[in-house]
Amino acid sequence: MLSRPIRSLLFAPANRGELVEKFPRYHADAFAIDLEDGTTESDKPAARSDLPRMVALLRDRGVKGQLFVRINQSRSPHADADVVVAGGTAIDGIMMPKLRAVADLQRVSEGLSRSEDRTGRALQLIGIVETAAGVVNVEALAGSGDVHLGALAFGAEDFITDMGGQRTAEGLEVLYARSRVVLAARAAGLAALDQVFVSIRDDDAFRRDAAIGRQLGYDGKMCVVPHQAVMANEIFSPSADEIERSRRLVRACKAARAEGRGAIDFEGGMVDEPILRRAEAVVRWAVEQGIGTE
Amino acid sequence: MLSRPIRSLLFAPANRGELVEKFPRYHADAFAIDLEDGTTESDKPAARSDLPRMVALLRDRGVKGQLFVRINQSRSPHADADVVVAGGTAIDGIMMPKLRAVADLQRVSEGLSRSEDRTGRALQLIGIVETAAGVVNVEALAGSGDVHLGALAFGAEDFITDMGGQRTAEGLEVLYARSRVVLAARAAGLAALDQVFVSIRDDDAFRRDAAIGRQLGYDGKMCVVPHQAVMANEIFSPSADEIERSRRLVRACKAARAEGRGAIDFEGGMVDEPILRRAEAVVRWAVEQGIGTE
Amino acid sequence: MLSRPIRSLLFAPANRGELVEKFPRYHADAFAIDLEDGTTESDKPAARSDLPRMVALLRDRGVKGQLFVRINQSRSPHADADVVVAGGTAIDGIMMPKLRAVADLQRVSEGLSRSEDRTGRALQLIGIVETAAGVVNVEALAGSGDVHLGALAFGAEDFITDMGGQRTAEGLEVLYARSRVVLAARAAGLAALDQVFVSIRDDDAFRRDAAIGRQLGYDGKMCVVPHQAVMANEIFSPSADEIERSRRLVRACKAARAEGRGAIDFEGGMVDEPILRRAEAVVRWAVEQGIGTE
Repeated sequence: MLSRPIRSLLFAPANRGELVEKFPRYHADAFAIDLEDGTTESDKPAARSDLPRMVALLRDRGVKGQLFVRINQSRSPHADADVVVAGGTAIDGIMMPKLRAVADLQRVSEGLSRSEDRTGRALQLIGIVETAAGVVNVEALAGSGDVHLGALAFGAEDFITDMGGQRTAEGLEVLYARSRVVLAARAAGLAALDQVFVSIRDDDAFRRDAAIGRQLGYDGKMCVVPHQAVMANEIFSPSADEIERSRRLVRACKAARAEGRGAIDFEGGMVDEPILRRAEAVVRWAVEQGIGTE
Repeated sequence: MLSRPIRSLLFAPANRGELVEKFPRYHADAFAIDLEDGTTESDKPAARSDLPRMVALLRDRGVKGQLFVRINQSRSPHADADVVVAGGTAIDGIMMPKLRAVADLQRVSEGLSRSEDRTGRALQLIGIVETAAGVVNVEALAGSGDVHLGALAFGAEDFITDMGGQRTAEGLEVLYARSRVVLAARAAGLAALDQVFVSIRDDDAFRRDAAIGRQLGYDGKMCVVPHQAVMANEIFSPSADEIERSRRLVRACKAARAEGRGAIDFEGGMVDEPILRRAEAVVRWAVEQGIGTE
Repeated sequence: MLSRPIRSLLFAPANRGELVEKFPRYHADAFAIDLEDGTTESDKPAARSDLPRMVALLRDRGVKGQLFVRINQSRSPHADADVVVAGGTAIDGIMMPKLRAVADLQRVSEGLSRSEDRTGRALQLIGIVETAAGVVNVEALAGSGDVHLGALAFGAEDFITDMGGQRTAEGLEVLYARSRVVLAARAAGLAALDQVFVSIRDDDAFRRDAAIGRQLGYDGKMCVVPHQAVMANEIFSPSADEIERSRRLVRACKAARAEGRGAIDFEGGMVDEPILRRAEAVVRWAVEQGIGTE
C-alpha cells in the first residue's frame, strides 16, 4: 500500500521542462516526470541529467502531492541509469513501466534500496502492468512481497497494442485485464491506479471511464492533462462513510494490539492486514485533507 | 456436486425466528438460517443456542427443500461453536461465508466430519467466495478435493466492498469475478450459486440479473425474499432437453460400467466425472419433481 | 506462432465431400476438414479413410490457404487413427478439439512427430479450448512449449454447453473465457482464433462479433460458411501501419543479430521473442499478399 491514497497521478514528459515546472500549480495527489514513452529516445540522456535540477525546483516551489519519476522499462539500456539518477533526488518513488516478471521488479527494487542507503529517504514503487506477459503474471507480481512495491497501475493502451487488439470507448476489450489487475492488487494489499484516458477533450467520456475504474475498486487514475486530475480527485474521493469506518477500524486495531490481541473482530467481520493498511491510508489522507482528526 | 440441484436458496436471519418459521410455506430448493451478517453480533450466541429448536420445528412442519445454516466466517470467534451446534441438528449442510483459503475450508470440513461421526448424518458444504483473496484462490478452493464441498457461491456485495468498488445495476464491475467463480466450480465438478440481488422490489431487474447468472452457467441463485425464489426456480429450471439428455447419459454410464468399460463415449463426446455427477443431479431432481422416472 | 497469419479458417464436414471439394473456390486463409462434430459418429471411419483422396484432390486443384484436419478429441476412440491418417496426407496441420490438459497435447504432438519422421513434412497444431477444464488450464497449455502448437482457438458454443450456460448475441457470458484464451495465447507467442458465429444469415451480427474478437487481440476467426471468411479477411487484415512497423522491426532484429547483439531496442521498446515472431508472420503474410517486399 502507498503511504497515502492517490486519486490522481498526472504525467508530464521529462524533456518538456516547461510542463514539469507547472506541477506546483495543479491539484493532483501525485505527479510523474516521464522518462519513458513521453520522452523521445534521443532526448532521454539529457532529460535524465536534468532530473535533479527539476526535482529540486519542484520541491522549492512547494509542489503539492507525491512526486514520482517514470523510468524506462527494466530491460532497456536506460533503466539502470534512470534508477540511479532518479533515486538520488528528493522524489517519493519510481514508476516502473511494462512490468512483466518478478525478476524485473527485483532488479529495480534493489536499485531503490541502494539509493535509500545513500540518501536515507524511503522510496516507493508503482509497477505498471501493460503487457500480455504482465497480466498473466500479475498475481505473482502483486504477491511478491517486494518491500518497495506499493501499487500496481493498469496501462490499457500499451496492453492492447501488445495484444494486437484495438481500443474502444466502451472498453470491453480490456475489462478482463483491468479487472484482474485491480483484483490482484487488492488481494495483496496494494493500491491500484486505473488506465489513462487519451481523449483529452471529452470530459464526459473521461468521467464515465473513471467511474468504471472506481466501481471496479481502483483507488485512482493516471491522468495526461491537469483538468483530468481535478475530475479524478472528485470521482475517487473516499466517501464520508468510508472515512468514518476507516477511523473506527484503525482505532479498534490499536486497542486490540494494546491488549495483546492479534486477530481483530470489527463490526462483524475479521480484519486482515490488507484491510488495515488500506484503512490507515484513508485516515492519513483524510487528516491531510483536513477532514477530522486521526 | 450437491446431492440435488439448487435453483433457489432463501436466507432468513437466525435471530428472526418468525421469519425462519415460515420456511415451510415457501417454494425454494434450499433454505439457509443465517448466523452471519443477518444476525447482529450481540444476538449471535442466543440465535446459535436456539438453532436446534428451530431446525426441529422446520423438520416437524415438513419444510420442502434442503436446509442449511450459514455460520460465521472461519476466522471469527463464533465459527467453531457454530459448526458444533449446527452440525448436531438435522440440517443438510453448512454455508461458509468469506472463504479465503484452503486452510479455512479444511478447518470447517473437519468440524463437519466430527459431527457426522456423532450424528451419522451426511453434511454438505457450500463455500461463499466474496473477498478479493477468495477470488484469487478460487481454483485452489474448488480443486481442493474437500469431501464436503458441494458448491461455491459468489457473493457480489461483500466482494465489491472488499475491493473498495461500487455495485451497479449492469454489473460489469463483478463480471470478471462472477465468471471466474462459476468456471472454477464447473471445472471441479461443483455446483455454483449466483449472487444475491438486493433491490427486492424490482422484479424485472432481478430477472435480468438471474438470466445473466443462468447464461454464465450458474445452477441457481441466493435469494433474500420468498418471491425471488419463485422467479429463480423458473429461470434456473433445467430444460426438458437437458433432463432427457442427462437421463440418456446416466444410463450409458451405468451400461458401460456393467460391461467393465471405464471411459465412456456418449453422443460423440467423452464423459468425464464432473459431467456425470452433474447429469446424475439433474436426473435426481427431475424424479423428485415428478418429471418422468429415473 | 503459425507459419503465417490466419484471418479466416473455414470448416466443412469430412463426410460431405461435395462441400470439401469446393474449398479451392473460396478465399479463406485456412480450411479445415472436420472429422469431429461436423461428421456423425457412424460416418467417421469412412470419412477418415477418404481423407487421403480428399487432400490430394484439394492440392491438385490448387487450394489457396493452409489446409487443416480437425481430428476427434484426444480421449475419444478415434483420435489416434485420425492423427495417423491425417498426418500421412499433405496437410499443413491438425486442429485438436476440446483440449483440456497438457497431457492431451503431448499425446497428439507425439503422433505428429511420428508423421513428420515418415513424410518429412512439418505439421502445425491448433488447439481448440472449449471446455471449463481447458479454460482453467489455458495458461499451462499455451506455455507448454509444445513444438507443434502454433495457435489456440476459442470455441464459445461447446464452452457454454460444458458450463451449463446459454449463449446470447451480446456475448457477456463468454467474455471472461474469450479474453483469457487470447491473453494466454499472446503471452506465449501463439496465434489466436476467435469463436465461430452460428447465425449464418445475420452478417451484421457476424461483423459485430468479429470486430469484438479483433479488438480483444484475436488474429482471425473460425467460419462455418464461405462468405463469413470473406468478411473475416477484411476485419482481421493487419493495417498498413502494422505491416510497415513489422517490416522495420524484423529488419532491426536482423541487423542486431548480424552485429552480435542479443537484446533489441526498437522505437523505444524492447523486442522480445513473441513480438518478433508475430512481426515475422505479418511480414510473410504481406509478401504473399503482394503488399510490398520483405
